[in-house]
Amino acid sequence: MLKLILVRHGQSQWNLENRFTGWWDVDLTDKGVEEAMAAGALMQDKGVLPTRAFTSLQTRAIKTLHLALGVCNRLWIPETKDWRLNERHYGGLTGLNKQETREKHGDEQVHIWRRSFDVPPPPMEPGSKYDPGADPRYEGIDVPYTESLKHTIERVLPYWESDILPVLASGETVIISAHGNSLRALVKHLSQISDEDITGLEIPTGQPIIYDFDDNMVPSERYYLKDS
Amino acid sequence: MLKLILVRHGQSQWNLENRFTGWWDVDLTDKGVEEAMAAGALMQDKGVLPTRAFTSLQTRAIKTLHLALGVCNRLWIPETKDWRLNERHYGGLTGLNKQETREKHGDEQVHIWRRSFDVPPPPMEPGSKYDPGADPRYEGIDVPYTESLKHTIERVLPYWESDILPVLASGETVIISAHGNSLRALVKHLSQISDEDITGLEIPTGQPIIYDFDDNMVPSERYYLKDS
Repeated sequence: MLKLILVRHGQSQWNLENRFTGWWDVDLTDKGVEEAMAAGALMQDKGVLPTRAFTSLQTRAIKTLHLALGVCNRLWIPETKDWRLNERHYGGLTGLNKQETREKHGDEQVHIWRRSFDVPPPPMEPGSKYDPGADPRYEGIDVPYTESLKHTIERVLPYWESDILPVLASGETVIISAHGNSLRALVKHLSQISDEDITGLEIPTGQPIIYDFDDNMVPSERYYLKDS
Repeated sequence: MLKLILVRHGQSQWNLENRFTGWWDVDLTDKGVEEAMAAGALMQDKGVLPTRAFTSLQTRAIKTLHLALGVCNRLWIPETKDWRLNERHYGGLTGLNKQETREKHGDEQVHIWRRSFDVPPPPMEPGSKYDPGADPRYEGIDVPYTESLKHTIERVLPYWESDILPVLASGETVIISAHGNSLRALVKHLSQISDEDITGLEIPTGQPIIYDFDDNMVPSERYYLKDS
């Protein structure tokens, strides 16, 4: 039985501060570090050990991966990083405290931006201090200025199909360390969740989610590794 | 000017205990962690920032790389791990305290094993507790049972030529995080050091060594980044 392991990065500094993060590159908090290490210890305990890793270009996901792999003695596995696993780009909301945003734009509008399937937030203004466009990690990439969840899915799923699924199908145990919305994109696809329902699905930080795949590459119901 | 950065992993537990390590997978000490982070801070300070990374399959080199890249905000660069950058395999000496080995085999014999160019130590016995042969990271690899420095060079240099040099020549700033003897192999080649002299060359831990390459891929004299 082939196994796919999904891990959302541990708590970041801006998760803690309740700010829209998106493509801004914040680090893990001490709690986030602990969550990542606990994910590694759980994989070790359960004997579910990845042989190939995929992650985003964002430090919080990469560090989560490294910390988890360090604990389960798998730092040596091949690792591929790609911007298409990045968090949803929150556009002009990036860097704003969520409470302040609600006060400014109103609860309803913020709820729409955060939770609607296809309404993106206002675009990031070029030159904004939170614009990642000048970051060398995105050289050659057509960096978005804002994304809906639908936009995020439209970059995550082609990458899943072209780069990750073939590796999984070849017999590898794949771990993907990524973000709330890039993982929502995968879970929506694999668990066939509707556009309406996916926006309300919370992916907990640092908690490995497993899909088993049969010989026809049909995924099982998803489950938490801790419950297996 | 193209730049190659060589870093020997920070102090490991067995460096500290003065034991032959070779392919055994020991972790960094706290001092080793500090050395790795200092290497990252130095790259940041000097503005010498890698865009591509190569390392071995051994935790101490991988962690050194990750710690250094974390400090200089380069965790996102592509990273390739390969057994051909592993430390020299110390065969039957693996795991032995160097003082005990001297007492058992005599100073002269130990000096020959450690410092001769082409005399390998006695082979590791299959089934030895320090035999990495059953480690899944070496699946499909014809794991050696012992190596001279010459043997080490004979696997490092083809990998340099086939996998690293073309990447460097394409314009990337390459960092190689590796081990005393796999780095000796590279330094011997790049600095044209004789078989006799290379065995006495010490590569300090956690201290970035730089080669600049001209348009014809001819390397400069090597120098320490700290002195530049």
